[in-house]
Amino acid sequence: MRSVSIAGIGITSFGVRTESVVRLGAEACRAAMEDAGVGPERVEAFFLGNFASQAFTGQNHLAPSVAHAAGLGPVPCTRVEGACASGGLAVRQGVLAVASGAADIVLVAGVEKMTSAGSERTAEILAAAGDFECEASLGATFPALFALISRRHMHEYGTTPEDLADVAVKNHAHGHFNPDAHFQKEITKEEALSAREVATPLRLFDCAPISDGAAAVLLCASELAADLRPDPVRLLASAQASDSPALADKGDITRFRATVRAAEEAFQSAGIQPEEIDLAEVHDCFTIAEILALEDIGFYRKGEGARGASEGETALGGAMPVNTSGGLKAKGHPVGATGVAQICELVRQLRGEAGPRQVRGAEVGLAHNLGGSGATCAVHILAAGG
Amino acid sequence: MRSVSIAGIGITSFGVRTESVVRLGAEACRAAMEDAGVGPERVEAFFLGNFASQAFTGQNHLAPSVAHAAGLGPVPCTRVEGACASGGLAVRQGVLAVASGAADIVLVAGVEKMTSAGSERTAEILAAAGDFECEASLGATFPALFALISRRHMHEYGTTPEDLADVAVKNHAHGHFNPDAHFQKEITKEEALSAREVATPLRLFDCAPISDGAAAVLLCASELAADLRPDPVRLLASAQASDSPALADKGDITRFRATVRAAEEAFQSAGIQPEEIDLAEVHDCFTIAEILALEDIGFYRKGEGARGASEGETALGGAMPVNTSGGLKAKGHPVGATGVAQICELVRQLRGEAGPRQVRGAEVGLAHNLGGSGATCAVHILAAGG
Repeated sequence: MRSVSIAGIGITSFGVRTESVVRLGAEACRAAMEDAGVGPERVEAFFLGNFASQAFTGQNHLAPSVAHAAGLGPVPCTRVEGACASGGLAVRQGVLAVASGAADIVLVAGVEKMTSAGSERTAEILAAAGDFECEASLGATFPALFALISRRHMHEYGTTPEDLADVAVKNHAHGHFNPDAHFQKEITKEEALSAREVATPLRLFDCAPISDGAAAVLLCASELAADLRPDPVRLLASAQASDSPALADKGDITRFRATVRAAEEAFQSAGIQPEEIDLAEVHDCFTIAEILALEDIGFYRKGEGARGASEGETALGGAMPVNTSGGLKAKGHPVGATGVAQICELVRQLRGEAGPRQVRGAEVGLAHNLGGSGATCAVHILAAGG
Repeated sequence: MRSVSIAGIGITSFGVRTESVVRLGAEACRAAMEDAGVGPERVEAFFLGNFASQAFTGQNHLAPSVAHAAGLGPVPCTRVEGACASGGLAVRQGVLAVASGAADIVLVAGVEKMTSAGSERTAEILAAAGDFECEASLGATFPALFALISRRHMHEYGTTPEDLADVAVKNHAHGHFNPDAHFQKEITKEEALSAREVATPLRLFDCAPISDGAAAVLLCASELAADLRPDPVRLLASAQASDSPALADKGDITRFRATVRAAEEAFQSAGIQPEEIDLAEVHDCFTIAEILALEDIGFYRKGEGARGASEGETALGGAMPVNTSGGLKAKGHPVGATGVAQICELVRQLRGEAGPRQVRGAEVGLAHNLGGSGATCAVHILAAGG
């Protein structure tokens, strides 16, 4: 299969947006094409990550609508859904389309417009990403599921509420430097620890917010990349794995097998080790999820992931900064956009365009995008240079 | 890219089913694996076509749930959505995965469970496949949109209510021979012409029913196919195209550009002409849609598609039988399953296993799957022999 590069990125500001979901998606698409210097007539296929546009906005069958609004021709338009990993899965389908030779230039976007649905309805829509029969229909929302996971991690490994707060404080500190982030305000550890409880032991700042937003990337065959931009970024690996959605089916709810498997495959495919990653965007839908991700990817031993934030290793300036964008926590989490936005952040960093949040000497980055309570995972590894 | 074959098919009976959407999908998956003689541990990737499971059943993020219920391992599980073409798009993603060398054996399924939502809610859910801002939010349901298309086709080309009824009578006659069909009862032309109006000029028998059901196909690299079965079927082409979802954006609402383009690409890719097709499954969500499809694919000149059913050319025993399964009209239309079920019917026919509805000497078949009012189209061409 052919090598694939990223020639353009586009991202809307995240937060409360008044545009329709279609226009939001098209805004990111146009930005990515402009960034690559590629007109819509050159795009040969379009993949769109979206979780629940029908439930949030009334519009299903979203891919051709966004493509038409972005000015694309009558090319194949495919919506891909894998809950909160929808964006990462869309990127992977785009990568396969280029790698296989089916297309030379592919546009991938992710979008979600969530803030107009109201918080109770939103919790219900999000719960449909878990197991409906055994969890959602009985009232187990996502904060409840991740609260169970947090408690078990605390029981097994001695993780504390302070450890969770350290993740929130770090990611809000990073979001402070991201002008597109939903929340750009720093928080203190005391604020995190005294915020209202959402599902014990998770408090307000342990949970990613409900956001609107879109992100897009323009993928191309690596041999074309240099003609498009002086600083393309190369995909070293695109891996995906799955697991049962129900917590009851997991032997150990503190370890997401889909993440373990996707990360192993990604490192093998890229031919590198976790130590060689300079920065990562991981799926911190809840603070505990960042800790699990660091362990399951292989950056820390199981039980030791909390060290990342608590000892400053994953902060800007640390050994391996994690979620320099602010993560889902501060940047916001428009579900379908998240996996694509992670790739946008890595590309910015690997191009050296991240401004005050730039990781010095960043050459290799990893993106980890999770769907449901660990049922779907996509891992991408990117490197500077076409 | 590598040649791809179909080594197994599985289909549930269509109609009102009491199982959960997950179990329905898993039933088709297990049948396809059994038909191919392949255990779930050999499947390397899973694609699922589904339109609106969250709205119909409460369960989104459906692919890993169905995969887990079917006994698959932690392989990549991806839901693909393109309205009523979701199944065809899932097949195409599966084909690309095998053709690219990303996987040797891929399972593709389509499923929808619709009958428990009630008819008013169902019309609303289906309307989300069209343009929400300009059509669905103003009350334009799909029967209304296809009624407009019917009227225009009648105005331009002299098509009559009798022509529409001929399509319904033919497809119900075919469904009579399909033990898996939702409706297995023949109807008369008089019954069709006197049935209650749904959206003038469309009457009850001009409209596909609301059904539950699932279908699956096991795809493999053609070089492996002969080891799996003595009679594999080869994919000659897999094409996809799109158009704006809104009728207002189409220059001519009697011609679906997505179908025209996907069919042209499919014939070019297969290196054959429309005259070489022995049988076809086309997307007759409404009787007028079958007439449009026959014209847009290139089987008939624009305006002459009604001749197919009226002159018996597309009936069993005719020159090129169309919708031998009963079509969406009689077999039923569980949205996400439809595109996969079309492929299952062609495989049965090309293997010579279609029993009383067997097309004699069938060697090459075409499947046409449409999403929305012509916004998404997938066309596949299959040939007997591995």
